[in-house]
Amino acid sequence: MAAPPATDAGLVFIGRIRTPWTSRLETPRQGRTDGPLCRIEVFDPWVPALAGLDRFAQIEVIYWLHLSRRDLVLQSPANDGTTRGTFSLRSPVRPNPIGTSIATLVGVEQSTILVRGLDCLDGTPLLDLKPARGLFTPPAPPQPGDFQVGDT
Amino acid sequence: MAAPPATDAGLVFIGRIRTPWTSRLETPRQGRTDGPLCRIEVFDPWVPALAGLDRFAQIEVIYWLHLSRRDLVLQSPANDGTTRGTFSLRSPVRPNPIGTSIATLVGVEQSTILVRGLDCLDGTPLLDLKPARGLFTPPAPPQPGDFQVGDT
Repeated sequence: MAAPPATDAGLVFIGRIRTPWTSRLETPRQGRTDGPLCRIEVFDPWVPALAGLDRFAQIEVIYWLHLSRRDLVLQSPANDGTTRGTFSLRSPVRPNPIGTSIATLVGVEQSTILVRGLDCLDGTPLLDLKPARGLFTPPAPPQPGDFQVGDT
Repeated sequence: MAAPPATDAGLVFIGRIRTPWTSRLETPRQGRTDGPLCRIEVFDPWVPALAGLDRFAQIEVIYWLHLSRRDLVLQSPANDGTTRGTFSLRSPVRPNPIGTSIATLVGVEQSTILVRGLDCLDGTPLLDLKPARGLFTPPAPPQPGDFQVGDT
């Protein structure tokens, strides 16, 4: 398939992730909480945006899988002739190759964040950091949708 | 702050999310699993990539918060004069306004996915869908990094 042009919105790389893995054949398929220490280096001007992140034991790390193909609708990850839909996999190959991990926060030192639990190549561009979903209580005032429960 | 240009990588919108919320003042601050039914409409040519997604009770939904400012390093979500670093919040305002939710999958009907647990505006552009992290076992063969545990 010819992938449609990726021009609907633009990203800015806000940092770089340093991991022990320099080849795609070595990286873990999924991060593990007892995995090796990895370093997230945040670029200026975003360093002050880290204020308060150290209060969370786990953080969501969002990154750009910069070496991935973007044109596969079906994939055969086990290379056994069977195919699966791209959205039923967590493969790096996808129309928008965005990786998300929940990492264990080890420490924040100026512009560097130390974590465990990543699964990406050394040099992977960083897109975003957030407190892990379950650990976070929004400080913003309540909104009507907060109280809305399901219809059918 | 003048935000740096967002030209490091490009995104393609692969669908559109339909929710009950048409104003930012109404949307929930965080989705709830018993929240209203929402519809994710996937565009051609990505519909075949949904194959197999219906085997997962929860899916990760990644979307583009298209109305958000991207230039704030510090924010005051409670509007009380105190500020917090952008990366210590799950606010939609961030350098790359990417939202992630774990949604409960209700059903897949051709190009439409029915879910609960979203927190975004009606019309939000869709970037990606993945099986929820904990429910997914990679079908790809093991790699050395899978077995690598932490040094200090």
